[in-house]
Amino acid sequence: MEIVYFCADKNKTPFLIMLFDSDIYAERRQRLRSLVRSGIIVLMGNNDSPMNYPANGYKFRQDSSFLYFFGQTRDGLVGVIDCESGEEFLIGDDIDIDDIIWYGSVQSVAELARQVGVSSSKPMAALADLVAEAQRTGRTIHLLPPYRYDIKIQLADLLGVHPLQIQASQALIDAVVALRSVKTSDEIREIEAACAIGYQMHTTAMRLCRAGISEQYIAGVIGGIASSFGCITSFPSIVTQHGEVMHGYPSSAPLEEGRLLLVDAGAETNSNYCSDHTRTSPIGGKFSQRQREIHDIVADCHDLAMTLAKPGVKYLDVHLDVCRLMTERLKDLGLMRGDIEEAVRAGAHALFLPHGLGHMMGMDVHDMEGFGQVHVGYDNETRPSEQFGLASLRMGRRLQEGFVVTDEPGIYFIPALIDLWRSEGTCAEFLCFDKIEQYKDFGGVRIEDDILITADGCRPLGEELIPYRASDVEAYIAEQQEA
Amino acid sequence: MEIVYFCADKNKTPFLIMLFDSDIYAERRQRLRSLVRSGIIVLMGNNDSPMNYPANGYKFRQDSSFLYFFGQTRDGLVGVIDCESGEEFLIGDDIDIDDIIWYGSVQSVAELARQVGVSSSKPMAALADLVAEAQRTGRTIHLLPPYRYDIKIQLADLLGVHPLQIQASQALIDAVVALRSVKTSDEIREIEAACAIGYQMHTTAMRLCRAGISEQYIAGVIGGIASSFGCITSFPSIVTQHGEVMHGYPSSAPLEEGRLLLVDAGAETNSNYCSDHTRTSPIGGKFSQRQREIHDIVADCHDLAMTLAKPGVKYLDVHLDVCRLMTERLKDLGLMRGDIEEAVRAGAHALFLPHGLGHMMGMDVHDMEGFGQVHVGYDNETRPSEQFGLASLRMGRRLQEGFVVTDEPGIYFIPALIDLWRSEGTCAEFLCFDKIEQYKDFGGVRIEDDILITADGCRPLGEELIPYRASDVEAYIAEQQEA
Repeated sequence: MEIVYFCADKNKTPFLIMLFDSDIYAERRQRLRSLVRSGIIVLMGNNDSPMNYPANGYKFRQDSSFLYFFGQTRDGLVGVIDCESGEEFLIGDDIDIDDIIWYGSVQSVAELARQVGVSSSKPMAALADLVAEAQRTGRTIHLLPPYRYDIKIQLADLLGVHPLQIQASQALIDAVVALRSVKTSDEIREIEAACAIGYQMHTTAMRLCRAGISEQYIAGVIGGIASSFGCITSFPSIVTQHGEVMHGYPSSAPLEEGRLLLVDAGAETNSNYCSDHTRTSPIGGKFSQRQREIHDIVADCHDLAMTLAKPGVKYLDVHLDVCRLMTERLKDLGLMRGDIEEAVRAGAHALFLPHGLGHMMGMDVHDMEGFGQVHVGYDNETRPSEQFGLASLRMGRRLQEGFVVTDEPGIYFIPALIDLWRSEGTCAEFLCFDKIEQYKDFGGVRIEDDILITADGCRPLGEELIPYRASDVEAYIAEQQEA
Repeated sequence: MEIVYFCADKNKTPFLIMLFDSDIYAERRQRLRSLVRSGIIVLMGNNDSPMNYPANGYKFRQDSSFLYFFGQTRDGLVGVIDCESGEEFLIGDDIDIDDIIWYGSVQSVAELARQVGVSSSKPMAALADLVAEAQRTGRTIHLLPPYRYDIKIQLADLLGVHPLQIQASQALIDAVVALRSVKTSDEIREIEAACAIGYQMHTTAMRLCRAGISEQYIAGVIGGIASSFGCITSFPSIVTQHGEVMHGYPSSAPLEEGRLLLVDAGAETNSNYCSDHTRTSPIGGKFSQRQREIHDIVADCHDLAMTLAKPGVKYLDVHLDVCRLMTERLKDLGLMRGDIEEAVRAGAHALFLPHGLGHMMGMDVHDMEGFGQVHVGYDNETRPSEQFGLASLRMGRRLQEGFVVTDEPGIYFIPALIDLWRSEGTCAEFLCFDKIEQYKDFGGVRIEDDILITADGCRPLGEELIPYRASDVEAYIAEQQEA
């Protein structure tokens, strides 16, 4: 493995580019083949994604599973694995002189194949022949669920079906989930590098968190940090004074003294491993009494999850223990009432926490979510719930060493949801609606870290945790804004 | 018209959000209808564009023509105009409580319609009925060429054709080009705002242009500036020491003392009007003699274009005059030889300048390029060339007051192209290949500004021109890097 460090600026974190050995990809494909056992596996790489006209694309992002098994970041490639014969192909077209003028010289597809231990390459036209031959001989063609519409059309034409009716292979999904869920030490190092970028992003947001600055301004700066040191933000940054909106994208509104700013943002390294952190900071630098009380509950829930998460434990149970603690503490504040166990069973806490404790993370920030949450975060033993709130828990199954999951409790006061539940009497025996009404202008608090499941517990990833305890956040902001 | 200025940070340029009056959209649609005359016009708004799984999208970018006529930036909208009856519809689905929890409250489609002067709204399911009714009665359904693949599938299902065989309407293309090509003073003000962001981006790149800093680092920072003050970069930033690669995307390579850094980048305002500038800076702060000679030629070509561009002049002729000057000056340097007129007629200069002098600019950085270059930059009078180099001129036709075009000459030394032409003897009578060989490590120089065609000439857009003369670039870098 080759590790290249560049110090981009002497005042900034170095970033890291990891080029895995060809052996790693060959071994992954070998393991995939032995899990799937028969048929041919077709892994589609991504193409450019048009933004506002065909030639003006968004920043290229390779498909994560293609990257995992075939490692190459060029557009227009397809990987094929024959499970029985063991033959492997990297499929794609070489470029010509016009492309060289516009995009520079690039390596041939044969060379790209060789770099990742694939012995054969073919032009794109050969893909149709391979698929037709498999269809003629009645072999299974294993596909992952496509999510890009150009790929859907390409597959539809190959298979003779409607683009929105491509059938994915459950055997392939299961095999890829089995492999990608458990991160190796090389992958952990990449995620730690993403967390280092995330640290810069979040501490910069804290430094900028002052009245008059716009949400959009902060989102722009931290997005710039993600691209300066890595590929791109791992998802569109959430930078909002409306923390009660789960995906509150930044507006051009200026920050207002006394409100909370919720920042949920992450980076992807150049190798596309992700980070995902959330911090909630007081605009003006000091939490009010009410803000601190809610923030402390969320911080304690965040810490509780870290004490519970370990191999063999269901993340669903960690989530429920967090919900119990949250309910107990919201009772102390007079926002909830009644029996804690019954309240959690009824899902009353979901008025405040309508999402789950966390999700798998890796080369996708919600790792492999495109395969369907039930195939990644659940299994035959642990089935997803249909209850409001719990249904949004993306990761429920037993933890294993090497899993990377997020720990992200939150408490939100969502006016429309409060009005709805109150009018319908939902969980009325557990909820003190008169008191809750007083918090309708509160917004929301979320704290999120990325944790690695270790042999006997877990640890947060990243060299240093971004300050998250209320006093630490205040101290950090004071120190940075003074400097 | 409402103009909102926010000072995002006291040290930075204010950004501007312009919300046009509903009258402006109504008037544009009225003019469109009178140009198209019969049938129904269907303008598809954009949807979220998946990056690495369905729910993880790139930053939303509305379609420019939809924006121009229907003004709304929400995803999942379609605008319909009945040319005969004058009926107009904004089509889209309202959101429910789950969406409110995740994305916040948003206005109803009926309210969005009202804001842009459209009296009727309908749910998305109604689009199929409208299209079917038009088909049943034999009316023309006018579409622009789709460039997003989800939209191609949606239209294919509506029309009963293959997604890659959607027929666009030439009448609609011609009408939209006629309207969007001539910018109003409000639009100019938006482009000027984009240029102000571009000024920050390029001067920041100059400040960072030091040995050891990576291309990627600079691209990240200037991309952050674009998003902090506007929507997004108007195209993927070109930040490269390989200026000879036309679209040289930033690598993680550190800058090397003595080389040139070419930065071609622009911003989009929050209303999606674009800027597009290029500067070429010496890494280390001083041009070498050879670099300065080439840079001076490009700067003089850039200035020549500004003296020639005015209403009634073909931009093709401006391009050719620039090519003549470039050829003359390359002769002086001993890189070309022979008769200037003949050399330009033969396209010999295209070894150094394989692209055109410029393109239309507006809400798309290559304005309306998705309709086909021939429909935007050419007309019955001015036809595109097939000659290498000239064929890449995106804008050839007669200029009109209100057009915004780029002025972007460049000189490049492309090793693969030099080798190819030398081996084939292409334009050998005009090219001094022995001398040219000595420049194979040079890279490339481009200088680009955005110009508005005025009543009697043209003017560059932006309050202040980014330094572009070699001495000014050196002085600016020295001043900034010292500070």
